[in-house]
Amino acid sequence: MITEIALLNIADGLNNEFENAFSKAQSLIKIQKGFINHELQKCMEAENKYLLIVRWETLEDHTIGFRQSNEYKEWKKLLHHYYDPFPIVEHYKKVF
Amino acid sequence: MITEIALLNIADGLNNEFENAFSKAQSLIKIQKGFINHELQKCMEAENKYLLIVRWETLEDHTIGFRQSNEYKEWKKLLHHYYDPFPIVEHYKKVF
Repeated sequence: MITEIALLNIADGLNNEFENAFSKAQSLIKIQKGFINHELQKCMEAENKYLLIVRWETLEDHTIGFRQSNEYKEWKKLLHHYYDPFPIVEHYKKVF
Repeated sequence: MITEIALLNIADGLNNEFENAFSKAQSLIKIQKGFINHELQKCMEAENKYLLIVRWETLEDHTIGFRQSNEYKEWKKLLHHYYDPFPIVEHYKKVF
């Protein structure tokens, strides 16, 4: 299992719109091969900051499987215009 | 429940030492009031980068309870000299 991490900064004033869009977008990622679970977390210290955590069976389930899927095109349309700046996505492996 | 997030950058060449120290430090945090669980994750893209995730019942269980405890003094002694730079710690609340 690997963990995808993305720190998301949302353009000013669009938090509610983003959360609504994300509630729809979830269904696109949940059906992907290798998807295990996800969380969207909102930062308590910074108003426009969110953390997306997605657990995948393998790195390629995210970087190839999801990103080359038709659902990813929809995911981008729903979500990418809320990000300012565009997020850096990283992958992690559990140590403890 | 809240989630504490810290992106940790470890000084060059000290990853193994840090992981050994963290394996000892874990016992100090696990016994705190309000502690739920934790993960130490290692970045797959950046050699010296780790992500610490700790789930607490309340924000104050971390910011007051743990940080004012005797165990935090030990935690600092074991871990803080590995960080370069010193990490920013943030707290998150689950949206989805």
